[in-house]
Amino acid sequence: MVTNFIDLYFVTRNASRDMVKPLHIEDYIPQPVPFVSPPRWVLGHTTWFFEELVLKKFKPGYKEFKKGYGFLFNSYYNSVGDRTLRQSRGDLSRPTVDEVFQYREYVDKHMKELMSEEMSEEISEEVSEIVTIGINHEQQHQELFFTDIKYTFSVNPIFPAYSDRALVEDTNDDNESFIRVKEGIRHIGHSGKGFRFDNELSRHKVFLGEYEISNRLVTNGEYLEFIEDGGYKRFEFWHDEALAWTRENSVHHPMYWHLIDGKWNQFTLAGLRVLQPENILTHISYYEAYAYARWRGMRLPTEFEWEAAADNINRGKRWEWTESAYLPYPGYKMAKGTVGEYNGKFMVNQKVLRGASVVTPPNHSRKTYRNFFHPHIGYQFNGIRLVKSI
Amino acid sequence: MVTNFIDLYFVTRNASRDMVKPLHIEDYIPQPVPFVSPPRWVLGHTTWFFEELVLKKFKPGYKEFKKGYGFLFNSYYNSVGDRTLRQSRGDLSRPTVDEVFQYREYVDKHMKELMSEEMSEEISEEVSEIVTIGINHEQQHQELFFTDIKYTFSVNPIFPAYSDRALVEDTNDDNESFIRVKEGIRHIGHSGKGFRFDNELSRHKVFLGEYEISNRLVTNGEYLEFIEDGGYKRFEFWHDEALAWTRENSVHHPMYWHLIDGKWNQFTLAGLRVLQPENILTHISYYEAYAYARWRGMRLPTEFEWEAAADNINRGKRWEWTESAYLPYPGYKMAKGTVGEYNGKFMVNQKVLRGASVVTPPNHSRKTYRNFFHPHIGYQFNGIRLVKSI
Amino acid sequence: MVTNFIDLYFVTRNASRDMVKPLHIEDYIPQPVPFVSPPRWVLGHTTWFFEELVLKKFKPGYKEFKKGYGFLFNSYYNSVGDRTLRQSRGDLSRPTVDEVFQYREYVDKHMKELMSEEMSEEISEEVSEIVTIGINHEQQHQELFFTDIKYTFSVNPIFPAYSDRALVEDTNDDNESFIRVKEGIRHIGHSGKGFRFDNELSRHKVFLGEYEISNRLVTNGEYLEFIEDGGYKRFEFWHDEALAWTRENSVHHPMYWHLIDGKWNQFTLAGLRVLQPENILTHISYYEAYAYARWRGMRLPTEFEWEAAADNINRGKRWEWTESAYLPYPGYKMAKGTVGEYNGKFMVNQKVLRGASVVTPPNHSRKTYRNFFHPHIGYQFNGIRLVKSI
Amino acid sequence: MVTNFIDLYFVTRNASRDMVKPLHIEDYIPQPVPFVSPPRWVLGHTTWFFEELVLKKFKPGYKEFKKGYGFLFNSYYNSVGDRTLRQSRGDLSRPTVDEVFQYREYVDKHMKELMSEEMSEEISEEVSEIVTIGINHEQQHQELFFTDIKYTFSVNPIFPAYSDRALVEDTNDDNESFIRVKEGIRHIGHSGKGFRFDNELSRHKVFLGEYEISNRLVTNGEYLEFIEDGGYKRFEFWHDEALAWTRENSVHHPMYWHLIDGKWNQFTLAGLRVLQPENILTHISYYEAYAYARWRGMRLPTEFEWEAAADNINRGKRWEWTESAYLPYPGYKMAKGTVGEYNGKFMVNQKVLRGASVVTPPNHSRKTYRNFFHPHIGYQFNGIRLVKSI
Repeated sequence: MVTNFIDLYFVTRNASRDMVKPLHIEDYIPQPVPFVSPPRWVLGHTTWFFEELVLKKFKPGYKEFKKGYGFLFNSYYNSVGDRTLRQSRGDLSRPTVDEVFQYREYVDKHMKELMSEEMSEEISEEVSEIVTIGINHEQQHQELFFTDIKYTFSVNPIFPAYSDRALVEDTNDDNESFIRVKEGIRHIGHSGKGFRFDNELSRHKVFLGEYEISNRLVTNGEYLEFIEDGGYKRFEFWHDEALAWTRENSVHHPMYWHLIDGKWNQFTLAGLRVLQPENILTHISYYEAYAYARWRGMRLPTEFEWEAAADNINRGKRWEWTESAYLPYPGYKMAKGTVGEYNGKFMVNQKVLRGASVVTPPNHSRKTYRNFFHPHIGYQFNGIRLVKSI
Repeated sequence: MVTNFIDLYFVTRNASRDMVKPLHIEDYIPQPVPFVSPPRWVLGHTTWFFEELVLKKFKPGYKEFKKGYGFLFNSYYNSVGDRTLRQSRGDLSRPTVDEVFQYREYVDKHMKELMSEEMSEEISEEVSEIVTIGINHEQQHQELFFTDIKYTFSVNPIFPAYSDRALVEDTNDDNESFIRVKEGIRHIGHSGKGFRFDNELSRHKVFLGEYEISNRLVTNGEYLEFIEDGGYKRFEFWHDEALAWTRENSVHHPMYWHLIDGKWNQFTLAGLRVLQPENILTHISYYEAYAYARWRGMRLPTEFEWEAAADNINRGKRWEWTESAYLPYPGYKMAKGTVGEYNGKFMVNQKVLRGASVVTPPNHSRKTYRNFFHPHIGYQFNGIRLVKSI
Repeated sequence: MVTNFIDLYFVTRNASRDMVKPLHIEDYIPQPVPFVSPPRWVLGHTTWFFEELVLKKFKPGYKEFKKGYGFLFNSYYNSVGDRTLRQSRGDLSRPTVDEVFQYREYVDKHMKELMSEEMSEEISEEVSEIVTIGINHEQQHQELFFTDIKYTFSVNPIFPAYSDRALVEDTNDDNESFIRVKEGIRHIGHSGKGFRFDNELSRHKVFLGEYEISNRLVTNGEYLEFIEDGGYKRFEFWHDEALAWTRENSVHHPMYWHLIDGKWNQFTLAGLRVLQPENILTHISYYEAYAYARWRGMRLPTEFEWEAAADNINRGKRWEWTESAYLPYPGYKMAKGTVGEYNGKFMVNQKVLRGASVVTPPNHSRKTYRNFFHPHIGYQFNGIRLVKSI
Repeated sequence: MVTNFIDLYFVTRNASRDMVKPLHIEDYIPQPVPFVSPPRWVLGHTTWFFEELVLKKFKPGYKEFKKGYGFLFNSYYNSVGDRTLRQSRGDLSRPTVDEVFQYREYVDKHMKELMSEEMSEEISEEVSEIVTIGINHEQQHQELFFTDIKYTFSVNPIFPAYSDRALVEDTNDDNESFIRVKEGIRHIGHSGKGFRFDNELSRHKVFLGEYEISNRLVTNGEYLEFIEDGGYKRFEFWHDEALAWTRENSVHHPMYWHLIDGKWNQFTLAGLRVLQPENILTHISYYEAYAYARWRGMRLPTEFEWEAAADNINRGKRWEWTESAYLPYPGYKMAKGTVGEYNGKFMVNQKVLRGASVVTPPNHSRKTYRNFFHPHIGYQFNGIRLVKSI
């Protein structure tokens, strides 16, 4: 196989190793809530993906590293078999972190051998396709690693820091202005040869009415005005389920914000910091994004409006909530076999986010990329972009 | 105001009175699950709507029937004030059913006076608008009455019957065939003068690719083949959340089906009956509808595809699940005040259903009508229509 | 059988009929919480007891009134078979109240025939034994009827009244004084020929140290001082589980108390009334009783201390919490068959109460009577008697 | 202070250090269920006890090791302040295990200085009293360490082992025989000068009827007969709450038993082993112990019967369930201040266990020792001793 391809594999694998360097062994284990995955599990799971879907299938004579790892490190692939319950990933003392690193080395060695081999063209193509998915899969977990370790540190009363950089300090350089997009038929979805997930297909036509979209994301200071105007208590801006959610969870402000002695602070990967009004707002749920937009007399973009305007807006830094539900595109076809479980089976009850965030690995996203989360989820680096109907 | 209009009011009000005639007092009270409303509450709630939103505002000197009824009979209108918790509607012994009928008479008498009065044109228009909503609101509750009393009777081990008619015995007259719809721009949403809910607006253009839509709904017999083929256990057809739902709730067949001595029976409004394979399938959740369609190698229509084909298909009898999430149309504007809470605040996490069912009041539905429920809800008279992508 | 005995049966049965006279049909149905039984169910259940345990066994050719009633009206007897889930007694619309009264008449007619028959002495004894239990069983449910209907009315925002009498207005005639009881061996448990439940046996010796017991029960006014002294927030008086219970349920005062415009009111069977400080405190959990006693620097009596002093204290009006856990007496033997399930299987995690309350039927209690409830239960007419160790 | 006393302190402290030697860092963190405490927390908590209750009070100028540790390592002492929620002890990544060992060294150094100092006799006595409690407290946690790590390892599908010794392999040397104890007054509770917890006081008289008590504990083989006789399904042997517990938790055999290929295995501290019928039964709940005894036609001893017979039975190896509820002895007085929270506030809803187990530290127990757990708890090394009433 192509050298560049092998390089890409190892660049990605090494990035996982680098990102955990600031951790102590103790940090690899806890899982304070089911949606957070402990770093040890992530290191094992991303490795298991290559063992299960590549080595076992394509490397003759490959012996699995250790019986039982399939059970421990499968996430949600029914076609592969049973697995540890998602909420139990933090209950396990073993394997040790050391053993997981040995597992990684073992799999990497075999992957190197496999990829260096002469293969028939047909097999080579199949292997490179699934390895590419594995690389993108590991990149997704690299992003989740940062949001998960942030969550885990945030519940610790002594507020540990991961690094010196807060990763929320970015400011908008521009004043808010709105870009007008004319009505018409747009082509939506991925085209061309580069990698894309199956949910970006098939490329199809959508009719869009005229709209104006903001050139930039909402800031902390702008959101503070919403809070100070009683936004969290004014039911008229909220979905019915959102209001119930704010009440059951006592939500009065974005997660990771702390009002201490009358001053707003924000928990960051660098520990607790004073909130900066000029920084871009982050860690916001769809529910809050929607309510804020209504308070402004505007709305969120649909994912189609976002994609149509993507080349003309200042994007990056935050995953941007859209009004669109996560649904299959016309002509969408689930892949056969295990990778078919990657996207399609989640296409209900979730919202699409577009763009990328400060912790998305380089070159991982693109303008047709469809991220998705349930509407109450705020622990990603999410943000708000506004749209006006004309 | 116009006599016809007053007639329409009383036709609707009397229909509510007629539908409860087969009941015993005991049947008005229980609420076995939160999503079911007891008949006593429904009779009070639909009356409260006119008292609160019409009489109190527009009839000078109107005195409310009884203090406390506002608290008891408000459903979910935050702008009106506090209310009985939804799950507690069956916990109340009083008011008696008799008192609720007195309440209805009192409000009807005042409504008649109000509607017979000379009013300024402006007021008259405002009144007729909200009364029209009230009439449609009561019609919606008439449909829910049938689905709710069916549910309540269904949990009783002695299986009471509401009437002699099962209301599920309809058969499809046609063989299954598929109608092709060409790609192009379609106009979606309500136009013209007749009544429509705000969620049917604004009318707008949508681009649709080519597709084929079934001329009829799926039958019990067809769905049985899915069951017998192991459909409920084959994860590859199900959404991830749907699979969890089947497992947590031990769902192996449609609700109201009972396998007794190796034979399928169905609980109906006429009691327990032997299942008829040629009858149209009913009481199906979106989750099941989606899985069935995938097993068939097809899919559900979007609400736009449904509307575009509505004039050419044999519709009626069941609410038809669509693949579309319940979202605002472009240009959608929530009404001001209390009626603004009618639709807009539910536009998240729900699926659109189109058509009408055997228990929908006459003239209540139309081809732009958007019904909506959460994807696991099967206790409405729901059915499946299939679509093939080309 | 003896005429007096038949009379006793009908006196008891008629008392059940009389107690429900003030009710509307609607009041018979709701079950706002699992531990409350709806009146319709109680009327059926007490009747089922005689049908199942007497008529079916001892009346040749007896035909059960209606198939399915066994399932509906069994409470907790495993030896008899399956049953409606306890929390679902309020979910049932049918049978109607009328049908339940027909059931009662049918069973009473057959019971009369049975009891009037010539029987062998042996059978007669067995029958009279189980009928006696059935009578006492119905009396227990008569008491529960009052506490249950009170609970059901209490959750209704319009506060219905059962009668004109509040049943909480009793005052203590005496000032508080303490009676000293000398140390020594006491005989505990029932002796003699009258009826007793199996849990009052066998009579046995207990050694008691010296103690002083109050001549009367704690009043509302005395308990108010505890509240005003911050009693509910001072952890040092509470059991660990009790404190958790107060926090999870926001308990700051006895149930049925309402602070309205700075004034304490109490929900009673006659509706909402101003709280009278001189009345005897009622509706108190063991947790609160214990905490109050500790605040006073005293304690609750054990059930043995209570029984030993019973002839010298002013008792009646409230079930009195004791410090004793509900355990079998030495030599306790569970009865064979269904009645064996009456008491023994509840002898864990509950506390003993002694005495009787204002709603206990006449002649139902005695000084060896052992009532029992979980320690957080306050909806009975419970009260506090204090003891000082010497 | 006395050298022996200082020795005892360090013997105990070193035992804690020794017991964790076989662990990896990863084993110190997880808390799979709220009632299990992670080893890191235990090492910190037992240290915090000395810092909070001894050093801060009695050592002039003492500086706490680190702010925040009081919050992290307080277990349930309300008088000391807020604390980490019990169920969140496994959610914390920091402090590291290393930091906790530094904490231990710091506190030990200061404890050594304090105990070596010249003190007034009065202070010396107060200090030695609370240090003695601290030592016994740490011994209790040493026992819990073994039961907790066993539980944590047991939920891991790869079944890690703590050591080579299973700690369940003990057999009964004797055949079952019963020792008769005559009726009479017994003295119960601690007397003399040695250490005892406050719940062992005050010594008092109890009248006991005649009974026979087994010379030894029930074995695995004997319990297997109960299982094979359908014991878990025969409701007549079980408390009502126990039966519900077996059903809700699918309990069909003692915890840690696994039926693999038709053969019973048992998870032990040495991993999975074949079950030995001649070994003493262990890890049994009170509910199961009670049901087994009833199946045998016998019962469990009261704690008084146990204590009266303690010198004549072969005890040790298992905590033995008694029929007695955990209640205060006559004349029991809670200690003032923080140590008053040690025992008294748990005296409701729990059962007393007597004896000691194979993992109880040497010299920690005695015949008046009262251990206590909720009746469903089986993860301690619990066993069954039988009694016959005469």
